[in-house]
Amino acid sequence: MRINGTEIDDTFAEAFPMRATRLIITALTAKWALDAANSLTGFATSVIACGCEAGIERRLSPRETPDGRPGVAVLMFAMSKKQLEEQLRVRVGQCVMTTATSACFAGIHGDTMLPLGKPLRYFGDGHQISKIIDGRRYWRIPVMHGEFLCEETTGVVPAIGGGNFLVMADTARQGLAACEAAVTAMRSVPGVIAPFPGGVVGSGSKVGSKYKFMIASTNQAFCPTLKGHVKSELGADVGSVLEIVIDGLDEAAVSRAIRTGVRAVCKFGRRCGIQRISAGNYGGKLGPHHFHLRKILR
Amino acid sequence: MRINGTEIDDTFAEAFPMRATRLIITALTAKWALDAANSLTGFATSVIACGCEAGIERRLSPRETPDGRPGVAVLMFAMSKKQLEEQLRVRVGQCVMTTATSACFAGIHGDTMLPLGKPLRYFGDGHQISKIIDGRRYWRIPVMHGEFLCEETTGVVPAIGGGNFLVMADTARQGLAACEAAVTAMRSVPGVIAPFPGGVVGSGSKVGSKYKFMIASTNQAFCPTLKGHVKSELGADVGSVLEIVIDGLDEAAVSRAIRTGVRAVCKFGRRCGIQRISAGNYGGKLGPHHFHLRKILR
Amino acid sequence: MRINGTEIDDTFAEAFPMRATRLIITALTAKWALDAANSLTGFATSVIACGCEAGIERRLSPRETPDGRPGVAVLMFAMSKKQLEEQLRVRVGQCVMTTATSACFAGIHGDTMLPLGKPLRYFGDGHQISKIIDGRRYWRIPVMHGEFLCEETTGVVPAIGGGNFLVMADTARQGLAACEAAVTAMRSVPGVIAPFPGGVVGSGSKVGSKYKFMIASTNQAFCPTLKGHVKSELGADVGSVLEIVIDGLDEAAVSRAIRTGVRAVCKFGRRCGIQRISAGNYGGKLGPHHFHLRKILR
Amino acid sequence: MRINGTEIDDTFAEAFPMRATRLIITALTAKWALDAANSLTGFATSVIACGCEAGIERRLSPRETPDGRPGVAVLMFAMSKKQLEEQLRVRVGQCVMTTATSACFAGIHGDTMLPLGKPLRYFGDGHQISKIIDGRRYWRIPVMHGEFLCEETTGVVPAIGGGNFLVMADTARQGLAACEAAVTAMRSVPGVIAPFPGGVVGSGSKVGSKYKFMIASTNQAFCPTLKGHVKSELGADVGSVLEIVIDGLDEAAVSRAIRTGVRAVCKFGRRCGIQRISAGNYGGKLGPHHFHLRKILR
Repeated sequence: MRINGTEIDDTFAEAFPMRATRLIITALTAKWALDAANSLTGFATSVIACGCEAGIERRLSPRETPDGRPGVAVLMFAMSKKQLEEQLRVRVGQCVMTTATSACFAGIHGDTMLPLGKPLRYFGDGHQISKIIDGRRYWRIPVMHGEFLCEETTGVVPAIGGGNFLVMADTARQGLAACEAAVTAMRSVPGVIAPFPGGVVGSGSKVGSKYKFMIASTNQAFCPTLKGHVKSELGADVGSVLEIVIDGLDEAAVSRAIRTGVRAVCKFGRRCGIQRISAGNYGGKLGPHHFHLRKILR
Repeated sequence: MRINGTEIDDTFAEAFPMRATRLIITALTAKWALDAANSLTGFATSVIACGCEAGIERRLSPRETPDGRPGVAVLMFAMSKKQLEEQLRVRVGQCVMTTATSACFAGIHGDTMLPLGKPLRYFGDGHQISKIIDGRRYWRIPVMHGEFLCEETTGVVPAIGGGNFLVMADTARQGLAACEAAVTAMRSVPGVIAPFPGGVVGSGSKVGSKYKFMIASTNQAFCPTLKGHVKSELGADVGSVLEIVIDGLDEAAVSRAIRTGVRAVCKFGRRCGIQRISAGNYGGKLGPHHFHLRKILR
Repeated sequence: MRINGTEIDDTFAEAFPMRATRLIITALTAKWALDAANSLTGFATSVIACGCEAGIERRLSPRETPDGRPGVAVLMFAMSKKQLEEQLRVRVGQCVMTTATSACFAGIHGDTMLPLGKPLRYFGDGHQISKIIDGRRYWRIPVMHGEFLCEETTGVVPAIGGGNFLVMADTARQGLAACEAAVTAMRSVPGVIAPFPGGVVGSGSKVGSKYKFMIASTNQAFCPTLKGHVKSELGADVGSVLEIVIDGLDEAAVSRAIRTGVRAVCKFGRRCGIQRISAGNYGGKLGPHHFHLRKILR
Repeated sequence: MRINGTEIDDTFAEAFPMRATRLIITALTAKWALDAANSLTGFATSVIACGCEAGIERRLSPRETPDGRPGVAVLMFAMSKKQLEEQLRVRVGQCVMTTATSACFAGIHGDTMLPLGKPLRYFGDGHQISKIIDGRRYWRIPVMHGEFLCEETTGVVPAIGGGNFLVMADTARQGLAACEAAVTAMRSVPGVIAPFPGGVVGSGSKVGSKYKFMIASTNQAFCPTLKGHVKSELGADVGSVLEIVIDGLDEAAVSRAIRTGVRAVCKFGRRCGIQRISAGNYGGKLGPHHFHLRKILR
């Protein structure tokens, strides 16, 4: 299968179950909501070392937020409800509650709810007040800028981490140009984020290492500079491989993001140095979610 | 003392010793260097809960970087060399090494050096190569995008955390407008960062709480909505208090940042709702660095 | 009538008939479509001296454009069909056809159409080709980047120029902050533009002058620095007056833009230095369109 | 001669004498100075149809401007002093004087000065005041935002228009990526602008046409879609040609801009689809300034 001259490998991305929530952060102006969201979702590329994977889903106009102010929708993913609860408490406390004029709301309501404002309310030192509107509880915490309003809980849902595809290009310049277009296009897909810096991973890994203290290491079969030295998966022309990792709320969202992203990359095509699209998996034995590239792109 | 009608309190900011390093991150284009830096310095507002305080010092033109590519200078602060070393390993590994086309260099060289590329080199799974140029060692780690180049160590220096000033305004809108101008102006001061979202804290805290499990809580004497209920430090007109926290490499840098920031705020002045400038301290008993506002502004 | 402490004058904006068209400009990426639109709508603040008034209505996603590429919708206003036709020919030729990878489409189709690609096709020096799709004719003009695609004609409709409101503030800083918020809010209103730099006029004029060669001059009754010297319309507190001028496709659009803009300004209110909102008119004798502030805001 | 695999043609750019001035525009914040500059330099791509060629030279920090506010340096080029004088009067009056909180200063002082604030002062309707500081006259014109300050005259100098180079790429995507990098790099060269949208021309022209009423038309020898139909200058692989046109204050500045731009393009090189660099000339008979590519790049 080829699109615009770019070969699509007959393979699949293998992804894993995670737990996720969506937060809605608002502020007096869009700039401050965005500042809060960027701080909250920083250092959140890989759940193992960062405690969560997080990113901005999209910006929200005043008409789309609970308090009629400009806002941002953020998705946070962790391995368990417990881990997600812990990350919510620390990160929302440090990055959103500290932001001038911010407020924080649940972006998902469901059967299972995690504490959001519940532990943060103690920052009010007894001066906090709760309010129930339409059956939902909110905390009003007096702070120096005025009041930090925070919904008591936020919903948690089963989700998917580690959806991905690989872009093999003649040069890093060409790979980056195509991946930038893919990340831009994927912003229009609801329910997904690309948690790595700029949405792209430049140093994809394999499980394990020759060093026993390392649980993951460089995926040498996909390293262009090692082509002569190790068993390589790369053809002669491939000079750079970039990976786009996608976390999403369900299989449909991850599928749609992969489709949108790969199509955007393939608009560049063979002529712009995009040789091949592939995907990362572990032989299908570890992750229950399989995203077959050719099926998705049909 | 008044500037443009705004009262300058006769008080001082009390700040604490920290340890700091500067990193220089480069990439193929300025966008990707910035993406790496934003990820690295996210969730880094307060050292107690985040492990470090970090921020972008400034952007660097290709002429200012070791490899002639566009870059970003980042400052990271922690309580000890050990904590800073740990944060460097995890954050640079997760946020910079993963960024497509990035490289990472020491931005300070001195007597005391901390490991930078030293532990990250094992990601190369034996394929990494070291190179010594002008007496400094660099690691070339093969990755999917090509090669991640990382200096072996980076210098650590004594530094200062918690420099600050408070902006008391009629309204949050007015306080924010003035603080935005202050943060912009302070970007021209070398050797400092403002680690909170957008450079401003909306929820300044005091030590301790009525809840024993809380080590800090809202500073109620500066909360406008509590004026009638607690002993308040705020006059009748003050409707919002914002704090700018500054971490810097030495006393001169922090002083200059406070002076630059306060002057930018006072250009708005009483007529634009900026009533008063103050600063946070603990009576001078805890932190060895004192920044007297009126002395700095003279 | 007061909103948030700001007085709303019992007056009206007086506006004039113009002719307008909408163009849709697309390009390979959103950046290039925007570059073309910014060039096209530059030096287009006042129809008398610039030949037209023009501005960006909004950005368009690939799903909203005829050729599935990112785009920008632009509105252009002139005093007559003839003037608009001339401005289209020169400005689209110089600013859109010259932009790398651009294409240009009609954004309005109706009974009366003006030449768009029709005169530009001759640039092809005989190599241009026409194509009819769904009854509309397009010109494919070979150029160095590849091909400039341009619809043959674009619709012209009766429209309104000179809708406006005045923001009277304690200081220029406060007026600007409120007007920036107004211009941002007005971007969500379809069918309107604010043609002056940044959407705001700092030097509103009156008709006539003591100098016979000047057809317009400073509106001294609204100049804060002349309060002691001339008959002034300004109270003691007003230190700066800013005007937002609005051109729109019909009365409903202009009304909605004024309402949206004034409301955004009044969120700042008296406390942030916004004293009074007024509007510019000529006693109602010149322009047939009257926009009564209090009626619109009710 | 090849750089990074890209062929450098043994040819030269042919450029023409123009007259130029530099203006310094300041405002309360950098945003408003930039808004004024963007309006002033819009619709100014080609002197024949637009009356002048203009662009932003660079942003200025408060330390670099006459009034200590943030600013922008703008270059304007015309065919004669008379044409430049006329463009200054109309464009500064419509685009800078109308911008809220703006001021406008001469950016060049020399033997020959053109009127700047001199004709604009009449807008003050008799309320304008002149002031002489250090031998230079300034006009203070009362306006609604406060006061528009404008230097009486600005210097005019001999200058050069039409410096250029051509980028021949496999695809428009590749050409654009390289040209974007070139335009960014050229921003660091003082004394030059690239007057077309985004700095790039997608539809370069030749003199004359088969239609007698056209003075210029598409340069068919460089149109990739006409390769089979006309005598072409393009090899089989070239799918897109982009031109960067440069106006500058002297030969040294234009040379340096061409060198900086071509080098940035050649970093992409043959592997990223950049086949060839050439330049536009008329056989050397028309324009007195010749910029030989290979000499410049040596």
